Parts: sequence; C-alpha cells; structure tokens
Amino acid sequence: MPVTLDELNRADPAGFAVLLAGTYEHSPWVVERAHAARPFRTLAALKHALVDVVRNATDAERLALIRAHPQLAGRAMQAGDLTRESTDEQGRAGLTRCTPEDLARIGELNAAYETRFGFPFILAVRGPRGAGLAKAEIFATFERRLRHPPDYERAEALRNIHRIAEIRLDEKLGSEPALGNRILDWASALARHSDPGYAERGQLTVTYLTDAHRAAAAQLRTWMRDDCGFDDVDIDAVGNVVAVYHGRDRAAPRLLTGSHYDTVRNGGRYDGRLGILVPMAAVRELAREDRRLPFDVEVVGFAEEEGQRYRATFLGSSALTGQFDPRWLDQADADGVTMRDAMAASGLRVDDIPALRRDPARYRAFVEVHIEQGPVLTEADLPLGIVTSINGSLRYAGRIVGMASHAGTTPMGKRRDAAAAAAEVILHVERRASSAPGVVGTVGMLDVPNGSINVVPGRCEFSLDIRAPDDAARDACATDVIEELQQIATRRGVEMTLDLSMRASAAPCDPAWRARWERAVDALGVPVHRLPSGAGHDAMKLAEVMPQAMLFVRGQNGGISHNPLESITNDDADLAVRAFARLLDDVAAEHG
Amino acid sequence: MPVTLDELNRADPAGFAVLLAGTYEHSPWVVERAHAARPFRTLAALKHALVDVVRNATDAERLALIRAHPQLAGRAMQAGDLTRESTDEQGRAGLTRCTPEDLARIGELNAAYETRFGFPFILAVRGPRGAGLAKAEIFATFERRLRHPPDYERAEALRNIHRIAEIRLDEKLGSEPALGNRILDWASALARHSDPGYAERGQLTVTYLTDAHRAAAAQLRTWMRDDCGFDDVDIDAVGNVVAVYHGRDRAAPRLLTGSHYDTVRNGGRYDGRLGILVPMAAVRELAREDRRLPFDVEVVGFAEEEGQRYRATFLGSSALTGQFDPRWLDQADADGVTMRDAMAASGLRVDDIPALRRDPARYRAFVEVHIEQGPVLTEADLPLGIVTSINGSLRYAGRIVGMASHAGTTPMGKRRDAAAAAAEVILHVERRASSAPGVVGTVGMLDVPNGSINVVPGRCEFSLDIRAPDDAARDACATDVIEELQQIATRRGVEMTLDLSMRASAAPCDPAWRARWERAVDALGVPVHRLPSGAGHDAMKLAEVMPQAMLFVRGQNGGISHNPLESITNDDADLAVRAFARLLDDVAAEHG
Repeated sequence: MPVTLDELNRADPAGFAVLLAGTYEHSPWVVERAHAARPFRTLAALKHALVDVVRNATDAERLALIRAHPQLAGRAMQAGDLTRESTDEQGRAGLTRCTPEDLARIGELNAAYETRFGFPFILAVRGPRGAGLAKAEIFATFERRLRHPPDYERAEALRNIHRIAEIRLDEKLGSEPALGNRILDWASALARHSDPGYAERGQLTVTYLTDAHRAAAAQLRTWMRDDCGFDDVDIDAVGNVVAVYHGRDRAAPRLLTGSHYDTVRNGGRYDGRLGILVPMAAVRELAREDRRLPFDVEVVGFAEEEGQRYRATFLGSSALTGQFDPRWLDQADADGVTMRDAMAASGLRVDDIPALRRDPARYRAFVEVHIEQGPVLTEADLPLGIVTSINGSLRYAGRIVGMASHAGTTPMGKRRDAAAAAAEVILHVERRASSAPGVVGTVGMLDVPNGSINVVPGRCEFSLDIRAPDDAARDACATDVIEELQQIATRRGVEMTLDLSMRASAAPCDPAWRARWERAVDALGVPVHRLPSGAGHDAMKLAEVMPQAMLFVRGQNGGISHNPLESITNDDADLAVRAFARLLDDVAAEHG
Repeated sequence: MPVTLDELNRADPAGFAVLLAGTYEHSPWVVERAHAARPFRTLAALKHALVDVVRNATDAERLALIRAHPQLAGRAMQAGDLTRESTDEQGRAGLTRCTPEDLARIGELNAAYETRFGFPFILAVRGPRGAGLAKAEIFATFERRLRHPPDYERAEALRNIHRIAEIRLDEKLGSEPALGNRILDWASALARHSDPGYAERGQLTVTYLTDAHRAAAAQLRTWMRDDCGFDDVDIDAVGNVVAVYHGRDRAAPRLLTGSHYDTVRNGGRYDGRLGILVPMAAVRELAREDRRLPFDVEVVGFAEEEGQRYRATFLGSSALTGQFDPRWLDQADADGVTMRDAMAASGLRVDDIPALRRDPARYRAFVEVHIEQGPVLTEADLPLGIVTSINGSLRYAGRIVGMASHAGTTPMGKRRDAAAAAAEVILHVERRASSAPGVVGTVGMLDVPNGSINVVPGRCEFSLDIRAPDDAARDACATDVIEELQQIATRRGVEMTLDLSMRASAAPCDPAWRARWERAVDALGVPVHRLPSGAGHDAMKLAEVMPQAMLFVRGQNGGISHNPLESITNDDADLAVRAFARLLDDVAAEHG
C-alpha cells in the first residue's frame, strides 16, 4: 500500500520518520526535520521540503550526509551491506552483475574520487527516466565528474542524493510520473533522426530540411494526429508542424504555443523539442478525457530556430510574424545547396510563405516551455522557473592593434601588447556584468592571429556578447565597457575597435501571462522562482506581435545545453506538463 | 672650411652659437645650453651633449622644439620660407619636385597628422644613409607614423630632429661616416639575395642553403678576400664563411668574432649580418694600413642561426662548439628536402663537420656585434650599448580547461571561463615580470579553440615565455607565476596545465671582455650604457666553450627587428666599426 500525503500530514514525528524511512538512508535527520514543514499540498511540495532541510543544514551536516552514502558498487555492496533500496537501484543499473574488470575499474575510480574529493561517488543510477543507466553511461559520468572542481562536485553529489530520494518517494507514494515518462520517451524516439556524419557517431544534429529534419517533422505529425488527438495537423510552407486542438468556440482567440524541432550540431534532445512535446502531452490528456476548452489550442513545431544550415535564425517563427526574409532563399549551405532548392526538394511552396503570417487579433498569446539551458534552477534545486524577460543582447567583433615586438628584447615598460589589453578588457567585462543583476557579458572568441611564443602580440581579436533583462541595463553595460576599453587603449597605446554585429531588444514577458504561469506552478506545490532567459527563443519573435510568456524546466548536469549531456528528469517533465495543463485550465476558467 | 672640435671647445657662448647655427633651426636654445658641456672629446660627445640638453629640457620646451619645425613640403616650402638647410634636405628627397597630386597627398597627411598630434610631421628625410629617402618611403613612413600613439610619436619626432641635427653636424664638421656608409652599402648589396616567393615582393628572406643563401655566402667570401684583405677565406662544411686576418704571432690565441647571415622570413638586413660586416670593415682598415695585430682575427659568418628552414637553431655556431646534432640531417623542410640532401646539393661534406669543432685553448674569446632588436638604446638616444648578459629563458605551452556554457544563460557567478582565467594569467605575468629588473614575460600565443561569440570559453590555450639576465631571477619569476596560476585555477574552478618546452641558461658576458667593450665605447665619447640581451645570439652558444661579450647597436624605428623596418644609421654603424677597432687595439696593447 502506498503512503499517502494525508497520512504524512497527520503523522507525529516518529510516525513520519517511519513512513519515510530509507528516503535519505543513513541520514534520518533529513526526514525528521521535514516534519515541521507539514502539511504538504503535493508530493512536489514534500520533495521540496526535504531538499530545503538539506539546504538549511550546516556545511558539516551536508558533508556528513554525503559521506554516509555507500560507495558505488563498492565494498558495502560486495560485502552485502547495502540497504535493500541501494541494492535494488544498483542492481537495475547492472552493477550487481559486474565483471571482475568492471569491479577493478570501479575500484580505481572510487579510490581516485575519494582522494580528490574526500567523499564517495554518489550517482542516481536509475537516471533521468528512472529506468536505470547503462553501465557505460555510469562509467562515463564517473570519469567526467572526477574532473569537476570540488565545490561543484559536492553540490552535484547532493543533487544526486535528492534524485535518489525523489525516485524512492515516487515509489513510496505510488506516484509514477507517467506524463514525464511520455515526454522522455518521445524525445528519445525523436532523437533517432539525425543528420549524416552525426547519426553514425550517435550524435544528434537536425538542421533545416535534411532527411532527418523531415523525418522528425513527419514523426511529430504522426504523434499529434494519431496519438494526441489534435484535430488539424499540417506541415506548412516553411516546414513548421502545426497542430490545432479545437475548442468549443472556434471563433474565440486561440492560444498559441510551441517551440523548434531543429537542433544545433551535436546538441541535446530537449532544446526546443520540449516546448512541442509538453503541449502535445497536455492536449493528449484533454483528448483522452474528451475535454474541449472554450478556445482552440495551436501547437507549432517550428522548423528552424538555430541558424545552423543557413544564417536564418528564427526562420520558423519569422514566417508566423510575416518576417520571413526572401533574401534567405538564395543563401547556400556548406555544400552549395540554396534554401530555395532545399525547400523545393522538400515539396515546400515558397509562394505560400506570406500566407503563414498570423493575424494577432486571432490569438490570445504565445506561451513556450523550454529547458533552462543554464544552471540557475538546478543550483536552486527547483524543477520549474517562470521567465521574467527574454534578455536583450548586443554582439560586437573587437580588434586590438598594438605593436608586435620581440618578446626577449622589449622591456616590459616599452610594450604595446594587444593580448594584455584584451586581458584587461575580458576582466573588465566580467566585473562590470557581475555588478548588475541579470546582466551577462562574455568574451567567447579570443585569438592572437599568427601569434608566436617569442613575439609580443601586435594584434588580438575577440568577440563581445552583452545581455540584460532590459535594454537600458544592456546599453548601460555596453556604454561602460566601451568607455573602459577606450581608457585601456589610451593607457596602453593600442588601437581598439569594436564593431556592433547584432542588437536584439529585450522581450519582457507579459505580466498577466507570466502571472498565469506563476499560479500554475504554485498550484503544483512548487516554489515560484522567477528568472530571465539569457538565450533567445521563438517567443522573442512572437513577442513582436502578441503577448508572450515562458516556463523553464530544470536542466540536469549543471544545466548544460547545446551538448549531448543536456537532460531533464521524468519528474520535472511531468511537472511541466501538469503546469501547462493548469495554465490551460486557468485560461479556460477566465473565459467562463 | 669645416668647424673643428677645437674651435667649439674654445668658443664663448656667442661664438659657439654662431658656429653651430642652424643645427636645431628655430630653436637656438638647444645649442646655447650645450655650451656648458664643453669640452667635447669627440663629435659623438658633442652630439650627445645636444641630445642631453633636449632630454633635460621641460616638456613644454620639447613641445616647442617640435612645433617650431616647418611642415614637410608644407606651406613654408611652397612659400619659399624654409631655411637653406631644410630646402636642401627636402630637395634631396625629391620633395621640391612634387607633382600636384603628391602635394595634395602631403597636404592631407600633414592636416591629419596635425589634428591627431598637435604638431607638424618631422622626418629626417635624408634617411639612415644620409643620401635621401625615396618619395615612396616618405609617404609610407608618414602613413605608418600617423597610427602611432601620441607619446610614442612625440618621442619619434624628437629623434628625427636629432637625426636631422646629426647630419648637419657631420657636414659642419666635415666628418663623413665613411665606415658606416660602407656597412650600410654592404648590407644593402647583400640584401639583394632573397629566397623565391620573397624576392619578388622585395622582401628579404635567406634560409639555410637556398640559392640566395649560397649567393650571400659567396658574396661575403668575395668581399672578405678581395676588398677586405683577409688572408684565408673559406666556406666550411656547414656553410659558415670563415675568414682569418693573420696576426704577427700565428700561434697566439685568436680572437673569434662574427654573427649569422641567414635571416628570418621577411626580416631585416642587419640582424646577424651587422656582426659580420663590422669586423670586415675594421679588418679592411687594418689591411689598408698594412697593420698586423699580435694575433689572428677570425671572422665567421654563421650559416644558420634562425631555425627557419629546419628546426636547427644555432646550427652554424653549434658546429664550432662540437654540438652539431647529426639527427638534424634527416629533418625535411616544408618541401620534403632533407638537410642532408640540401647539404649534398651545396657541395658540403657532412663527414667534415666534426672537424669544425674549435679548440678553446686556441682562442681568447668570442665577441659579437649585433643590432639591439629592441627599443632601449633608441629611447635612451644612445648609439651603442654593452651587453651584460644574454638572458636565460623558459618557454611553456599552457592550457586551461573550464566549462563551456551558454553565454546567455550562465550567470556571471556560475561560470568557469577559461579565457577569463587566461586573462588573469596574462596580467599577472605582466605585473610580475615588470616588478623585477631585466625580467620579461610574454604570453605571445593566445587562443580559445573553436570559440563562439555566444559560448563561455571552456578552453583556452596560450604560450608563456619568461627571460631574465640570470637563471635565478628567471626561475623565481617562473615559480611565482606558476603559484599564481594555481591560485587562479583553484579560485575559478578551472584546470590549468603548463608544459615546459624550452629551458635556456643565461649567458653572462665575461667581465674582462665586457670591460674592453666599455673602454672602446667610452673612448669614442659615447656614454657607456649596459643592458641585457633579451634575444639569443650565436655568442650564447660560444659562451659554452669560451668567454664572450657583445656590443649592441641602436635600431631605428623603435628598435623593431625581424621586420623590413629594421634599420640603423650610417653614423651609428660608423661608431660600431670604430668601437670594434678600438677593442682590437686594446687587446693588441695588452698583448704587448
């Protein structure tokens, strides 16, 4: 019999501890202290209360929590000393069926890890889907985490402990994240389509109108039509997959949602796609219950957002805002294939593109769910976050010209070192951006062209990217940086030029729609956490013609994205679907 | 009738001013103040006294000195308002025969220059040889100097004023730098030989055993034998040109001197070659007077020092110290030609290389004259400098691994930015090296591999070059830098590795031989200025088997080297030959 929230909320401290025994094995104090946080509205709220106990503990307690954990496939397992839960979990990952070579390798890794960090390696071996990681994934993770800085790895160890506890709690309370599992399974199936050159290496790359891209679109269309119960499903003139779930009042303004299904090269399977799959899962539930909302829900899988094959970022959403630029059609890809030819080969009719433009009067808003692609939520131990604004950005190409001179014969005081000037620029950008909330500044490209070990750099090239939640903060940072650059240049006797290559305005999320996301998240018992979006998204385009608001989902592995390590858990995906469903209910209720 | 030093030394202030009128036109105060520095031992001493007046003047006076100068081919010339000297000088440069287009261009440049610096463009249009620059050179110089930082250009203007005065003084005192002119003419004739691909563009490149290299060797051999009066002249088994001027006692230990005649790619005509040409000119004078020293003088034009065609730096001098590495023979150049084949094609006999080893007992010392290749002497307004030590050096390849992450979504506080860590390293190296006398530290190569404008750098590669006059100072700097690197790495959570790729010991100049150079320089009336050599030289190799001491000659154009702008004046070259002759006299006198 599963434990119920009601039992937990009514339990005395001793009973509470018994009901949740083994959740944080060897460290019962975590559960004990969470008793004070009753009542719990939801399982998510209970999980968060437990996480909060650890966040509020002392450093020493946290370290003890980590140290109390058994080694992975270590002495405890070999001696039969593991708890039933641990044995079961390590067994699902194949770790109870290790070869002697595997055990030797794990022994070495455990020893190296203990030496480096002073605590055992802890991994939620059941993984993001709860089904168990493959042995190869476990080894790769172990090796990767061995290289982490100690502070970062300690936090990662705690996050794994919380994930282990989460899976145990799901089982204790008989709560299977079925909606989340569906999202992960869809994402996994969709990731089978990948461009040539990447597919062979098991890497995910889906760029505009390749075979893999068209296969992904066809797959989405099939799921939408056959599995999810959308009424109209089409692939439009730029390759967007557009699905509409009819409402009771077909004339009422629609809710528009979606994200992109193309990927960066060797990217992750959630960037973009999650924002298509979450509404799909929510609509599927409506259709299963045969529920109709008062208005249509239109889900768009945008064909292109990443600008990988052609320099035409946001192509899919631009078509909806009437900003498809016909000049894009004559761009050629690396193999010389123009976009026009690629579209013709895919059966897309260029002449139909203008008709894709949406009439804003027909829409309520655009909402988008997206993986965070950053470390904020994972470091805050929160599954969801409400986006306040999509940051505005400025991009520059910078060049410093000093005087190349002999590294041996030019005294320090007589140099005009372009790289040293660039170094000052980099550190100033870092300091200045750090001093303003939400502002980020990055020198991502840096090069001394034809540099020699024995020549004082006469030239240095760099890029500069500044982003902020509003244009005023962005511009203030840029102004300060440019002023400091001039001072550095004057002081060092170098010439510095900075050419603006991109200016994108910030797109603040619509307050009313943002409030709807907040209510939806709060209703799940998840703390409301607001954060800006540093990356651009399709919502940024749609913001030009209608209100927009975004929901972020926590990324695993430090929030890494544009990388095969990009990941989310089934529990977080489940919450995202439920938040989306809540949002729909909320809008429906307002509609009356 | 030329003015004599004797007249000047006896003149009262008014007479002194009359005798030197026009030397610093429009600013007679320079000459007036120099009166106090009488008596002058030599013309070089007089020149230095005038320079010193300007160095000791106020900033305002120096600026007034510059501003008093007429514009180049400007209004004054067009209005016929120039002094006779200026008209004559600008005439020699073809500036009195300008086309209307030339005048328009000069007008534009003058205006741009005045706007940027607030004073007129001043150029010693008679150039380093005193014969007048070509119009194209003047335009190129004008355009180059327009890009200088203001402080640097102000100093460059003063140096040009001194050079103009120097040429006027040479003429007033009837002192033609004939030995210096010979050096410049030889260097110019030798520079006609250049490797294919460079010769066509007017660039100087002479790498080991190319046709141009063999032609240069043959040219040196001809001059040594036919023009200079050496007794034995040979090209040895590695291509060194070896000339001996017999002394009275053929058994007495020889004095060894010389430098290399190969060049870097698109290099200058004095690096290396000056150290062959100066002894040649000195021996030529001895031979003309039929004078024999008590000992042989052996001049070696080393075939290879720069390591351009093969990775075999110091090949020529290594053969003399018995360190020719036979493994070099199997190296192939960029076209796949091995050194062994190149030597066979040049008629060089590999089997004879071991016999090139010199018996140190047969030699007094190795002395080398070299262009400074740095800014120290030119900024100190001194023609010659005595080298204290050839710096020891350490070279490292550095690599920083942080965590690549999204530039938009990764908050400043959560980054592990490899480039920002490198920036700290660069600035620390700069600070640390600046804090110790004679120490230099350079990060010459710097790169974020595959960096993207929107990605926080996860990796940064750099080189590090540390040099110091003694190994202890070099190592202390390296130790501090490495310690700081570790702190930066720990603080920023990045991994930093630094691999040593070269360690060269410092080669202090022999005190007794250094003192001989100092006496020789002092005897010319030139202030004795000591400085370390930041670059490596053939003397560094010879130092392993015998005492060595070096003389540096001031480089023009900020001391630039490994560059076509590398240059020296005829007056400075003249002083170098006379210093070398003095050194020979000094050693001869000691010999008794």
